[in-house]
This record gives sequence, structure tokens and C-alpha cells, in this order.
Amino acid sequence: MGAKVSFIILFMLLIIASCSGKRKQYTPCKSLVLFFHDIIYNGNNAGNATSAIVAAPEGGNLTKLASQFHFGNIAVFDDPITFDNNLHSKPVGRAQGFYIYDTKNTYTSWLGFTFVLNTTQHQGTITFAGADPIMQKTRDISVTGGTGDFFMHRGIATIMTDAFEGEVYFRLRVDIKFYECW
Amino acid sequence: MGAKVSFIILFMLLIIASCSGKRKQYTPCKSLVLFFHDIIYNGNNAGNATSAIVAAPEGGNLTKLASQFHFGNIAVFDDPITFDNNLHSKPVGRAQGFYIYDTKNTYTSWLGFTFVLNTTQHQGTITFAGADPIMQKTRDISVTGGTGDFFMHRGIATIMTDAFEGEVYFRLRVDIKFYECW
Amino acid sequence: MGAKVSFIILFMLLIIASCSGKRKQYTPCKSLVLFFHDIIYNGNNAGNATSAIVAAPEGGNLTKLASQFHFGNIAVFDDPITFDNNLHSKPVGRAQGFYIYDTKNTYTSWLGFTFVLNTTQHQGTITFAGADPIMQKTRDISVTGGTGDFFMHRGIATIMTDAFEGEVYFRLRVDIKFYECW
Repeated sequence: MGAKVSFIILFMLLIIASCSGKRKQYTPCKSLVLFFHDIIYNGNNAGNATSAIVAAPEGGNLTKLASQFHFGNIAVFDDPITFDNNLHSKPVGRAQGFYIYDTKNTYTSWLGFTFVLNTTQHQGTITFAGADPIMQKTRDISVTGGTGDFFMHRGIATIMTDAFEGEVYFRLRVDIKFYECW
Repeated sequence: MGAKVSFIILFMLLIIASCSGKRKQYTPCKSLVLFFHDIIYNGNNAGNATSAIVAAPEGGNLTKLASQFHFGNIAVFDDPITFDNNLHSKPVGRAQGFYIYDTKNTYTSWLGFTFVLNTTQHQGTITFAGADPIMQKTRDISVTGGTGDFFMHRGIATIMTDAFEGEVYFRLRVDIKFYECW
Repeated sequence: MGAKVSFIILFMLLIIASCSGKRKQYTPCKSLVLFFHDIIYNGNNAGNATSAIVAAPEGGNLTKLASQFHFGNIAVFDDPITFDNNLHSKPVGRAQGFYIYDTKNTYTSWLGFTFVLNTTQHQGTITFAGADPIMQKTRDISVTGGTGDFFMHRGIATIMTDAFEGEVYFRLRVDIKFYECW
């Protein structure tokens, strides 16, 4: 009997460990890799542009990113999301929100945006916020919430600049790892 | 004795289920329905206006929402919150933050704002972020944090346009469901 | 044996309490006090300024905060973070993001920003969002996410205006208390 009780207590300790320590494992409960494509309005591409500069520092304008590492620009976007890195692939949703260029001595932005996904595989939204030190190969930002299939999810998104063409087009690869899935 | 031990083990399995599975039930731990009222400054209503356009796309201005589904406008607001749908009811707090119109082919906004509540019933803040596809009857955004009575809360807010008058006044109904309450 | 089983059941009840109630204790799992320093561009301090007004209400401009409690201004910033209240101390990171002045009858802002920390002690980011009623001595905002050493963290940041010089310099003390640490 003593052995049985010992076993029970051991088992209970395992329960305690699994309750309090379940978040220490750092294994994503869900993962997703998506790309989004941003075409900045430059005065001549109204038909194709998916984003626009809407604020600029003193002396700046709304058809050209500001001179000092774009410091002070705010851009609003509604960008197509694709499963692969091809701008012309069928979009699986839209990336909507804004970015700010916020540094004077390097390219750094701050992102606040939402993936609105609408496919047979994924229905719902994922909201992101965080600093994006663009010149680094990979940057981590926070997934602060989700709705629909991503109800109450939280996680980390690793962003990579997958392509960059002049000051008009860039494509970001986003590796989303959810660690809280509900 | 064997039956008792079996019962204990069954009980422990229930504990495990209740620990790891408590978030799968999706029953709100707290709910709240509030309305907020936005009166956009149009050049002639400085006394009543609770929000103002502060950024616009190229060619736009700050007293009229932009022509292409308002794409590129950013508005800053400090709107009264009421318990019912009457603009003239006693405010229970202020909705403070900003919205962005971010789509060129339909009305879609992106919201970042906080409810600052200050009544005998509720003291504290609730912060929201997410995409708002305005033309849909109901839209879910994320409750990303809270303070005071809403310390560390998270949840989902379902937004409905309860009234809309021209381009000057709109009223949103917000059904807040907290699923993480602390 | 009955006593032993009773003890086991009591013990299990404690486990249940510790599982479901662990968040009710409100003891931070990690704390951090940091200062950041904001020098607003006013047309004459381009070399020192760490922030800039990039949006203003109708009639406003980008080198002077707006007249009506700065309502409608958006500022973008990249501010040094220090461990103490000395602007000239060695920075331990950068506070990057934006603030909005969103009230017409008092000084209130809305903050969206990230601490990017890069020292031997702390590597990672902390993202904040919330309303900042500036005239109150202390204000709580939400810590909505983190990366690196602050992976998936959430918490509350208490902000205090530690110094304020005219409309050019202010220093905020930020007491960060994490309640969800991973």
C-alpha cells in the first residue's frame, strides 16, 4: 500500500509540474509561414500601390520616403498575403495596418497590423505589434491577439525581408509561431 | 481499497483535464457591453467634435475624409463611452486612440485604442487592437490588455456599427468578452 | 488508511487551487525599472532631437505641438533608455514607436511603442500599448508582448513623468512588472 501511495504522490507531483510548467517547453502549438507584399505609392503607381505614405516629418512629402532613413514617415497598407513568395499567387488574405519609420541613423520601423485570413484552411485574424530593425536578417515581433481560428492566440512572428526593390516594393516572409493556442 | 485508488486516479485525471483544458471551454469569465460615439471634425463643428483627421494621403485634407474609401486617413479620437446607445447619456468613460482607413476598394479600418473607465462599477483600462472590416455587420478585434479592474485581462471584442450619420457621426456597440480574467 | 486518503484528497484540492488560482496572487514574476528620454524636434534641434511631430490637426504644423492640449499631434520617437534618470548615462536600449495627443481638454496621450534592449543583462523587446493620462502622477499601461529574454511576457507598466522641460524634453520612468513570464 505504501508503494501505491508513493506512486500516487509521484503522479500528483507530475500533475503539478505539468500545470505550472507547461509554458516552459517553448514548443509552438501552431505554426504558419506567410508572405506579404507592399507596393508603396510614389505618385505614379496608383493602380498597383497597396500602401501610401500618409505622414512625413517637416519638409517631407507623401510620394517619396523621407531622406533621413525615412525617419518620421507613417505608411498605411492593405497588402496581399500569399502562401509562397510570388506576388501573383492567389492571395489568402490581407495584411492591414501601418508602419512607422522611427530612427534617424538606420532603417528601423514600428509595426502595428493584422493578418485577415479568409481561406478554407484559415478563417480569422492575427494581430501583430513590435519594433522591426529592418537591417537585421531576422526580427522577432509579438503576436498580441487573434480571432476566429486564432481565437485568443499569442505568439512570436519572425520577419525576414524576402525581397526589396528600390523604395517601391518589398516582400516580407513571416514565420508565425503560436505558443498559446486555446 | 482498489476502488478507492481507482477513484483517486479518476479524480486526478479530472484535475489534469481541468488544468490543461480550462481554456478550451470558451466561456467568458467577464462580459461587458458598451457604446462609444465618434464625431469627426469637419471644419465647422469644433465645439462638438470628438475626433479629428490628422493624416491624409497625397491630395487629401484634414476636414474631409479622403475620396477613395477614406484610404490613408488617420483619425485621433477621445470619444464618450455610454452604457446605452444614447449620445447624451452620462458617459462612463472615454475611448481614446486612433483609427486608420487602410483599404482602397472598401471601407476597412485598423483600430488601436483604449477604454478608460471611471465609474463606481468599473475602474481601469481595456486596450484593443485589430482590423475592422466596417461593412460587415459584426467584426471581432482583440483585447490585448487591461489595467485596474481589468488587470491583465485578455479577450475578444465584437464591434457593430450601431448608427452612422453621413461622414460626421458614428456610434459603435462593443461587446467585450474576456476569456482571461486573473 | 482513511486518514491517508483524506490527506491525499486535501493535497489534491491544493493542487486544484494552485492550478486555477496561481494568477490570483498578483506577484510579479519579473520586475524592471527603466527611464527613457524624449527630445522633440522644434525646428532648431535637429542634432539632438529623438522624436518628431509627423501629424497635426488642421492648422497645426510639425515644429510646434498643437495649441489645444496638443490634440491631434502624432509624434514618432527613437529615444535612449537608461537605468537611471540621467540623459547622459550609457543607453541600455532604445524606446521606439509613437504617441498621439488625443484629448482637447487635458493632456492625454496614447502610446504604442517597444523597448529594444541590448545589454549583457537584457536582450530582447518589450511592447507596450495604452492610454496615458499625463497629468496623473502614475499611469498604468499594458505590456502586450515580448521577445528574446521577454519571450511571450505580459504585464503592467507604471509610467511616471520624471522630468519635463518646456515642450522639448520629457523623461519617463517606467516600472515594468511582468505577471506572465514563461
